[in-house]
Amino acid sequence: MPDHEPGDQPIEGEEAIIRLLAPLTCGAAGAFDLRDDCAVLEPEPGHELVLKTDPIAAGVHFPASAAPADIGFKALAVNVSDLAAKGARPRAYLMALSFPEAPRRHWLIQFRAGLHEAQARFGCHLLGGDTDRRPGPVTISITVVGSVPRGRMVRRGTARVGDGLFVSGTLGDAALGLQLFGDPTRAAALGLSAEMAQHLLARYHRPQPRLALASVLIEHATAAMDLSDGVAKDLGRMCAASGCAAKVRLADLPLSPAAAQAVTVDPGLWAAVVAGGDDYEILASISPDRQARFEAAAHAAGVPVRRIGTLTEGSGVVLEGLDGRPLDLARSGWDHFAAGPLPRRA
Amino acid sequence: MPDHEPGDQPIEGEEAIIRLLAPLTCGAAGAFDLRDDCAVLEPEPGHELVLKTDPIAAGVHFPASAAPADIGFKALAVNVSDLAAKGARPRAYLMALSFPEAPRRHWLIQFRAGLHEAQARFGCHLLGGDTDRRPGPVTISITVVGSVPRGRMVRRGTARVGDGLFVSGTLGDAALGLQLFGDPTRAAALGLSAEMAQHLLARYHRPQPRLALASVLIEHATAAMDLSDGVAKDLGRMCAASGCAAKVRLADLPLSPAAAQAVTVDPGLWAAVVAGGDDYEILASISPDRQARFEAAAHAAGVPVRRIGTLTEGSGVVLEGLDGRPLDLARSGWDHFAAGPLPRRA
Repeated sequence: MPDHEPGDQPIEGEEAIIRLLAPLTCGAAGAFDLRDDCAVLEPEPGHELVLKTDPIAAGVHFPASAAPADIGFKALAVNVSDLAAKGARPRAYLMALSFPEAPRRHWLIQFRAGLHEAQARFGCHLLGGDTDRRPGPVTISITVVGSVPRGRMVRRGTARVGDGLFVSGTLGDAALGLQLFGDPTRAAALGLSAEMAQHLLARYHRPQPRLALASVLIEHATAAMDLSDGVAKDLGRMCAASGCAAKVRLADLPLSPAAAQAVTVDPGLWAAVVAGGDDYEILASISPDRQARFEAAAHAAGVPVRRIGTLTEGSGVVLEGLDGRPLDLARSGWDHFAAGPLPRRA
Repeated sequence: MPDHEPGDQPIEGEEAIIRLLAPLTCGAAGAFDLRDDCAVLEPEPGHELVLKTDPIAAGVHFPASAAPADIGFKALAVNVSDLAAKGARPRAYLMALSFPEAPRRHWLIQFRAGLHEAQARFGCHLLGGDTDRRPGPVTISITVVGSVPRGRMVRRGTARVGDGLFVSGTLGDAALGLQLFGDPTRAAALGLSAEMAQHLLARYHRPQPRLALASVLIEHATAAMDLSDGVAKDLGRMCAASGCAAKVRLADLPLSPAAAQAVTVDPGLWAAVVAGGDDYEILASISPDRQARFEAAAHAAGVPVRRIGTLTEGSGVVLEGLDGRPLDLARSGWDHFAAGPLPRRA
């Protein structure tokens, strides 16, 4: 059996790769059809640009066997998720691609399709980039650029004692989805219906940045960040940056029906919920006098939010287990440089 | 003998790496001391932002054994070189670092020192970034942001038939320097003095973007780009983008005394001069009525420039050898995806 479909060929030459990707610029003036060395972008009047870079690599951030359309979608989504949490509107992105060998045409066309779907949904376009060939995993390095009204970017370190802590959507789905992707027999063992399994897989492969919440956060949040490394670790970051402490009960974390089923059968999966990462939901702090309005605005924007705790004096995060005792957080959350073997979340 | 100096330790934890790099923000407001998820930047009034991403990887773009300060310097310089060619002033950069294992403290401190020297010289600062751990070579992915007066970015594809072709500085030094780095006995074989060898090595390890030429290019150039993949290939790109042809004589290419000595002893080294890459000089097209003023302005800016040819009707680039016969350009210039084994220029 051939490794690749008939007619599928490696694409030799940087220029051929660039020409294949050029439609992703959607004709934007500052992208120069990917025919120049740099790109140009200007914020709207009264706005400033918000920038973020978050590369993803095969075998580390996504499975090398993932569908190329999913890889493309996710590469952009994980960057746009940060913009959403900061109250920013996506504008454009730069993308540097690294391949250990010339990519196959079919792979690149599917990858482009996933990116196209993502950028159409998020309202941005390709602005420029680079391709090279190097040993190691396929790597997609996206730098995304958004805009916010001047001075209004929602910060991470400006939460205040007494603020309520809210998260959007549900937690743990993606981390559980990754487990199912690695071992499809797991779905039956956990008593998950086909729909539940599909939900978890989609949450892993196709993160949906909460862009509908961006303007709500600007209006109402004292601080916000996206959840990419697990709520335990990311909440710890917000607390550390804001000089606060927090206590959160597992029982208060929002779970999808699929995740709820999974942790019922295997309570050890709570670790995936709080520390598995890849949620791409929003964590926001809201002052008490704003909470009703925040919840109403989020509801109007079509984004479910749930209060999971309160910021308090002190430092650190306590996660209270279902038995009322604090969980050990020594190794909660994703850290690429934690001591030990090369970590993977793919 | 230990692999590392006494007291040198791996830096465990993304947060420790980020804190070590935070001084590179120089306190810039939009960088938030690397304590937030995104960064903020706004062009000066009447300006727009110019963006470029150009990652470099150990063993591909630089030797893994290069001094970490040189690696840091070069990672930023190769990106800033593009800005210079576009007439842009550097403002800030994002940097994503990938390591296959936790970096050593001494390595990272030296790397930071090289970056600091580069950014101080180029007038920009670190704005944000990311670190991760993955198999494969150490990779530094910089996205640089500059600014130009609105609508004035110097393009690649706007050269016109009849324009004179100019390059800054000298060509081939860096490609020859790489050869010396790989085989130090080569310097004596080529009859190079210690100063000449040092010059070539410095040109490889410490590219000096021609920022002093940026405003001169805006004022006088019909088109410009930086030379990163060798003059043969990059001139071909300018011609293709502009719908022109060009003929250049080897004898007209500007060489340093060191490079002139090297090609005299080994004429095969002309290949390194025209196709070795890593020049980080400027290629510019200047209309006939502007050439005297361009040369005067470049001289006033302290940047040597030399006319190497004229743009003509047609397509393609002819390089005329010292014997008056055209060189074979079939494999001239750097292409990561040219058929064949994994290319290296490190």
